[in-house]
Amino acid sequence: MAHVDVEKLMETVGPKVIATRRDLHQHPELGLTEFRTASLVARRLKDLGLELQLGRDAMDSASRVGMPSAAALTQCFERARAEGADPEFLPKFEGGHTAVVGILKGAKPGPVVALRADMDALPILEDDTNDHFPVRAGFVSQHKGVMHACGHDTHTAMSLGVAEVLSHMRDQIHGTVKFIFQPAEEGGRGALPMVKAGVVDDVDYLIAIHVGTGAPSHVLRPNVYGHLASNKFDVSFRGQTAHAGGRPEMGRNALLGAAQAVVGLYAISRHHAGRSRVNVGVLRAGSGRNVIADTATMLMEVRGETDEIAQYMVKRAEAVLRGAALAQELEVDIRSVGHTTTADSDPDLADAVARSSREVANLEVHAEPFCASGSEDATYLMRRVQERGGRAIYTVIGSDLPSGHHTTKFDINESDLPPAVDALARSILEIGQKQTTH
Amino acid sequence: MAHVDVEKLMETVGPKVIATRRDLHQHPELGLTEFRTASLVARRLKDLGLELQLGRDAMDSASRVGMPSAAALTQCFERARAEGADPEFLPKFEGGHTAVVGILKGAKPGPVVALRADMDALPILEDDTNDHFPVRAGFVSQHKGVMHACGHDTHTAMSLGVAEVLSHMRDQIHGTVKFIFQPAEEGGRGALPMVKAGVVDDVDYLIAIHVGTGAPSHVLRPNVYGHLASNKFDVSFRGQTAHAGGRPEMGRNALLGAAQAVVGLYAISRHHAGRSRVNVGVLRAGSGRNVIADTATMLMEVRGETDEIAQYMVKRAEAVLRGAALAQELEVDIRSVGHTTTADSDPDLADAVARSSREVANLEVHAEPFCASGSEDATYLMRRVQERGGRAIYTVIGSDLPSGHHTTKFDINESDLPPAVDALARSILEIGQKQTTH
Amino acid sequence: MAHVDVEKLMETVGPKVIATRRDLHQHPELGLTEFRTASLVARRLKDLGLELQLGRDAMDSASRVGMPSAAALTQCFERARAEGADPEFLPKFEGGHTAVVGILKGAKPGPVVALRADMDALPILEDDTNDHFPVRAGFVSQHKGVMHACGHDTHTAMSLGVAEVLSHMRDQIHGTVKFIFQPAEEGGRGALPMVKAGVVDDVDYLIAIHVGTGAPSHVLRPNVYGHLASNKFDVSFRGQTAHAGGRPEMGRNALLGAAQAVVGLYAISRHHAGRSRVNVGVLRAGSGRNVIADTATMLMEVRGETDEIAQYMVKRAEAVLRGAALAQELEVDIRSVGHTTTADSDPDLADAVARSSREVANLEVHAEPFCASGSEDATYLMRRVQERGGRAIYTVIGSDLPSGHHTTKFDINESDLPPAVDALARSILEIGQKQTTH
Amino acid sequence: MAHVDVEKLMETVGPKVIATRRDLHQHPELGLTEFRTASLVARRLKDLGLELQLGRDAMDSASRVGMPSAAALTQCFERARAEGADPEFLPKFEGGHTAVVGILKGAKPGPVVALRADMDALPILEDDTNDHFPVRAGFVSQHKGVMHACGHDTHTAMSLGVAEVLSHMRDQIHGTVKFIFQPAEEGGRGALPMVKAGVVDDVDYLIAIHVGTGAPSHVLRPNVYGHLASNKFDVSFRGQTAHAGGRPEMGRNALLGAAQAVVGLYAISRHHAGRSRVNVGVLRAGSGRNVIADTATMLMEVRGETDEIAQYMVKRAEAVLRGAALAQELEVDIRSVGHTTTADSDPDLADAVARSSREVANLEVHAEPFCASGSEDATYLMRRVQERGGRAIYTVIGSDLPSGHHTTKFDINESDLPPAVDALARSILEIGQKQTTH
Repeated sequence: MAHVDVEKLMETVGPKVIATRRDLHQHPELGLTEFRTASLVARRLKDLGLELQLGRDAMDSASRVGMPSAAALTQCFERARAEGADPEFLPKFEGGHTAVVGILKGAKPGPVVALRADMDALPILEDDTNDHFPVRAGFVSQHKGVMHACGHDTHTAMSLGVAEVLSHMRDQIHGTVKFIFQPAEEGGRGALPMVKAGVVDDVDYLIAIHVGTGAPSHVLRPNVYGHLASNKFDVSFRGQTAHAGGRPEMGRNALLGAAQAVVGLYAISRHHAGRSRVNVGVLRAGSGRNVIADTATMLMEVRGETDEIAQYMVKRAEAVLRGAALAQELEVDIRSVGHTTTADSDPDLADAVARSSREVANLEVHAEPFCASGSEDATYLMRRVQERGGRAIYTVIGSDLPSGHHTTKFDINESDLPPAVDALARSILEIGQKQTTH
Repeated sequence: MAHVDVEKLMETVGPKVIATRRDLHQHPELGLTEFRTASLVARRLKDLGLELQLGRDAMDSASRVGMPSAAALTQCFERARAEGADPEFLPKFEGGHTAVVGILKGAKPGPVVALRADMDALPILEDDTNDHFPVRAGFVSQHKGVMHACGHDTHTAMSLGVAEVLSHMRDQIHGTVKFIFQPAEEGGRGALPMVKAGVVDDVDYLIAIHVGTGAPSHVLRPNVYGHLASNKFDVSFRGQTAHAGGRPEMGRNALLGAAQAVVGLYAISRHHAGRSRVNVGVLRAGSGRNVIADTATMLMEVRGETDEIAQYMVKRAEAVLRGAALAQELEVDIRSVGHTTTADSDPDLADAVARSSREVANLEVHAEPFCASGSEDATYLMRRVQERGGRAIYTVIGSDLPSGHHTTKFDINESDLPPAVDALARSILEIGQKQTTH
Repeated sequence: MAHVDVEKLMETVGPKVIATRRDLHQHPELGLTEFRTASLVARRLKDLGLELQLGRDAMDSASRVGMPSAAALTQCFERARAEGADPEFLPKFEGGHTAVVGILKGAKPGPVVALRADMDALPILEDDTNDHFPVRAGFVSQHKGVMHACGHDTHTAMSLGVAEVLSHMRDQIHGTVKFIFQPAEEGGRGALPMVKAGVVDDVDYLIAIHVGTGAPSHVLRPNVYGHLASNKFDVSFRGQTAHAGGRPEMGRNALLGAAQAVVGLYAISRHHAGRSRVNVGVLRAGSGRNVIADTATMLMEVRGETDEIAQYMVKRAEAVLRGAALAQELEVDIRSVGHTTTADSDPDLADAVARSSREVANLEVHAEPFCASGSEDATYLMRRVQERGGRAIYTVIGSDLPSGHHTTKFDINESDLPPAVDALARSILEIGQKQTTH
Repeated sequence: MAHVDVEKLMETVGPKVIATRRDLHQHPELGLTEFRTASLVARRLKDLGLELQLGRDAMDSASRVGMPSAAALTQCFERARAEGADPEFLPKFEGGHTAVVGILKGAKPGPVVALRADMDALPILEDDTNDHFPVRAGFVSQHKGVMHACGHDTHTAMSLGVAEVLSHMRDQIHGTVKFIFQPAEEGGRGALPMVKAGVVDDVDYLIAIHVGTGAPSHVLRPNVYGHLASNKFDVSFRGQTAHAGGRPEMGRNALLGAAQAVVGLYAISRHHAGRSRVNVGVLRAGSGRNVIADTATMLMEVRGETDEIAQYMVKRAEAVLRGAALAQELEVDIRSVGHTTTADSDPDLADAVARSSREVANLEVHAEPFCASGSEDATYLMRRVQERGGRAIYTVIGSDLPSGHHTTKFDINESDLPPAVDALARSILEIGQKQTTH
């Protein structure tokens, strides 16, 4: 019965999901500045009759890392206001507290089932040629240099869609459905503060979603594992300038120190116990050709198949950075700006979601384990649920992509969104109905 | 007799020198975009009755390196027009041909004596606090991020002062006086094109000047030697991006290649025959923390006590750069953007200038050899004169500096300018009068 | 019935296995110089009535890499002669062709089952203290600096033990049993030449054995997988000496080039598809403190979870080495001195061996997959058998080790050898009897 | 008159100088093991009637650095005994105290004039082909791997020749002549302990000599300057081994740390104030291809045109070494094994020696300053004399060399030795006679 209702509701909800996605895509917001997005999400959830947990109530302020500058926070906040942010909710998010939780209480007793979406965009300049569908369809980013290039606009839109569908079916809902909208997945900054605020402490089942990531259109993969634990650092070296021709020995060369650190970082030994990674993605050093450089900054990250391997990489990286600083007589500042952990999907929950989802037309479901290649801070939420005895899965919603994640021409196939909303709504309903205990 | 006249003329010329300097300081122009400066210099020289050689007539277009972008050339040209560039002469300099030569023919036969000044400014953001004299006196740079931080404004102003003095004394002049105003000394880009255009091919005596550089106020040092030959390069590495977590081996890491190159460059062996230098002053690489960097650019330079040593450094640097590219499977582009050579002051000419200058009140003259620590492309002009059998010197006009060359608070003591103009005018007169042959 | 006979035969064969092991341990021989060992193996097999395939008949001379020097070959050959090598067979192995195959034809038709052992020792100085059992028991290495520190002495002794047992049971043997004794497993040099000579081209079942490697005493693990493909290189850089004080720029610094290569090698990117390794284990460079070093040699290796990953590492390593040579203007010679591939155990054959082995008293058998951490050139033999449709396994014979493989105090527990011989003999008999086809 | 006598004495002394040189050449001894050499020198001086100061009386034991091992000291001591060391004096030198001073008191009052020679050989394997004169003439080194490849054999022989000449002319000698025979010039280890023992505290004039070093036969250059201050270090890194395939992350890689240190050392910035040098001449690391290396040792040196520059290099080198150790989590041991300072020749004393030497037939004397390119610990003796108000020179005795210093075919032209002895004897006599005060 439930699925009959869901199917019917999807007739109106489906187009709304796409419209919402396009609005968000036009107004992308970087991590911890999702002021407009969060306020509109809150508005929609409130209007659907959900209870809300917003801002500092949904995230622990002190656990945040990798904060934007105060100036950036203010500027983005004002931009959100100017671009239609909801005036009732906007103030709740001030200062970078852009977390939203919506709570839908079912008519019948049952477990707490949560759906998690992320809301942030990336510092990428979106392609503006006609090749790119958002250009042709008129919803390309209006924020120059910021782009939804990883599909979080679709995650938010789909979650709102599921909320709308289920809000009309309260009487069929066993237990409670929580809609978790997290800021700043990019960089691994948004999930842990929400965990610390306790938002999943009562959750029995958690479904985290991601569009794309290697699966084609019409395919759902609810059993993803293998996200790498990661730690992101901003590193700055500070030395002393000197004229390179006249007094070279008076300099303390931050550019040279950074170069030695880079080579040393990539040379950190592999770990026998599993995958490890290191990358210095950005390096900026020096001010003039004939001046010994006194500053260098690096954006870097390490990863590991387990927290232990990631910690090994962190420890080794710090030694390399401090060694380079010592060698060139520099000061070094190593600032943690984000991190993720590991968590694998629960096979039983994956099977349950697979069963429900297979009823959706044109959706192929692969419930066998599927290895992720990147990192995700949804793992903090999943791990917290699993540590408390709950079940959690990470679900990939396949879509044919014209260009890869994090590229200027990234896009998804919008026709993949409604079936996914349908599948998620059914799955959440049926999880509650079965009162699966664990 | 001559000096009596010079002294008298200085009463009116002195203040003009300072006023000109302040106007130029307010309107600094980077190398090869000295459109306003060059046009005003030409105007003044013309009004003083000198013959002119301008633009392509005074510099070989094809010998230029380190050109600004076409956009920058256009933008600076239009800015010059808007800020009072002389409309008659401005078109002569279009496209970055900002060289000016003024020719003053004396009433009597004699040698050709040349005075060389440079006109370009630096890409430095001038200090805007009240500590800084140009702020208090209201002539701080109006071009944000561009600054006369090496005193070339004073060189141009002093040379114009000498021209004005001597233009009133034609009947006392033996031979010809050439006033050479070169663009783009910074980076070593302006002198060689003027040499190639033949502007010093008839010069018997050449005096190049520089304010500051280690001598205090009231001191003239006409016997500078030891400028290092230098070669400046812009280097770019190009590789291939890849996701640092998901497909690291697909990347070709330009940031890593650049880091290896940096370490290798500083490790180039010393040369037994004299001083050598290498510096990578600026390094920029990569676009995102979790992306293997596909681009890296470096601004670098090498120097040597002789052209041979500088060439050794160039050869070794190229090997290091190409080796790093090979190791990381990158393309590398090494673009020469400037160079200087070596030339020592002629002791006899230095003595002659010293003798004349000692007559100026409050000016202390040190004619013993004084070692420079940097590089200068005036050396190309000096060397050409010396190769043809002429004599050339590099003269430092001392000044107490509140802050070193190429710093944001660089300034000179303006009271040092008039005595130097006086000394140079006398010297040029007396060199001609003595008809010194060589 | 067969096992009754095997058990009985073991009463006499067991002590012989230990005696043989001790004799071999006292006379260790490095890879491709196993002259004494191979000749004694041949003698024993001949005396047991087996057919022989020796030297160039059992290995392709041209496929050998990492050869000892001619002088070392001669010296070891003469040492073998002096230490009791069998005079009939010794000449067959001259020049480093130290392969032996023994063929035991059963009375009944059936498949070809092969047992593979390796015979070479390591360049390690054996411990000479009383802590070390071979010292107390009087069979410590008599060849200074050469040691059976990986247990190949036991492999050879056990294989001979199996041959002796089975030689008395011909009438019960279905098919043919091949005993493969390979040289030079260390460095990955001995197996491929035997493959090229065709010694496993008729083999239906292959069992390769290794003592120790992570399993405790009384445990047999017949289902080992995950050996890394590996490539070993000797690298030498050649430059030019110069006096470091007087003419440093005249040098071409091989030590510096090697140092840059080392750092670059460790910095080769991880591969997303699986484990990779790189190591420079030995570096020797230069001759005098005040001389620019003109030579540097490195012993290095790369590994990969697959041949593709190993080849990626080889390709990247070569680029790094050639880049370092280019940067320092050196010649570089990269000589392949050994390599291994990958091959996983066949689960069905592992199960068959497990079933037979479980009948042996005091032997615990674990037939589940067991991941190896190193490399093995038995993989070439295994792969060849598997490619032709046969089955192959790599079997670990557990033993409590007082000190790890490749250490100066390495030893095994001799009481683990007879049960393993028993288990292997039974397994080989029963494989033949079951006439398992594939 | 004096020179008549010197000339006559040279008829017998000249051939002896050559014979002594050949004996020493056949029995070369490394620094601080010059047991045979020192004992024979002492014997000769005693027999000529000189007073002696030997061993610990002539050198401060505690000031020695870079000591040979106890085993090497014992072995060389015994070898010396076996090869004809003088039994009376040999015991004085035990334990590496191989300094000799001979004191010749003149009949008349006057100053103290000292002549300094060094006695040590180098760890070089002498060429054994017929091209090499010592082979043809039958006096090639009998100590395999040790060679007089820098001519110290000739210095000792010439000084003994001067002692013999002057010992017959006591009545003509004004003042005292000191003959200083120092050990261990190579590595900069012998002179400072003799300074600390006070052997030049009463010296008014010091002449240090060296054969070859860039001057041709028949040329004397008594005015050498510019020896670089130098500091020599033995550096060892200690880490932790691990199996490179199985547990790479457990290693602490001393080879990698050393490689990073090497690159960092060569990258130490040039010093504006003068020449600097750095060299890592020898690097040895690791034990096996597939083992993470736990040890690395480097023989290195730094130099500077002044002590200040040398100290700058030392300070920077230590930072680089400690930085590399920190980066790879290694222990590092930096042991000072030798050092030299700077001291220029006194022009007046050089002129005096030049005047006396010009009287010698076939000797061309160049008294103008001559720049050395290496380092010398005679500078410690020179500096001490100069600090106390005395005068000191470093004199090069030219000789056509078939092959450079420190090469396997190094040799000198023996016909250059007698004229030099003649010139030195005359010079010493005349310095005393003129009673030059200072």
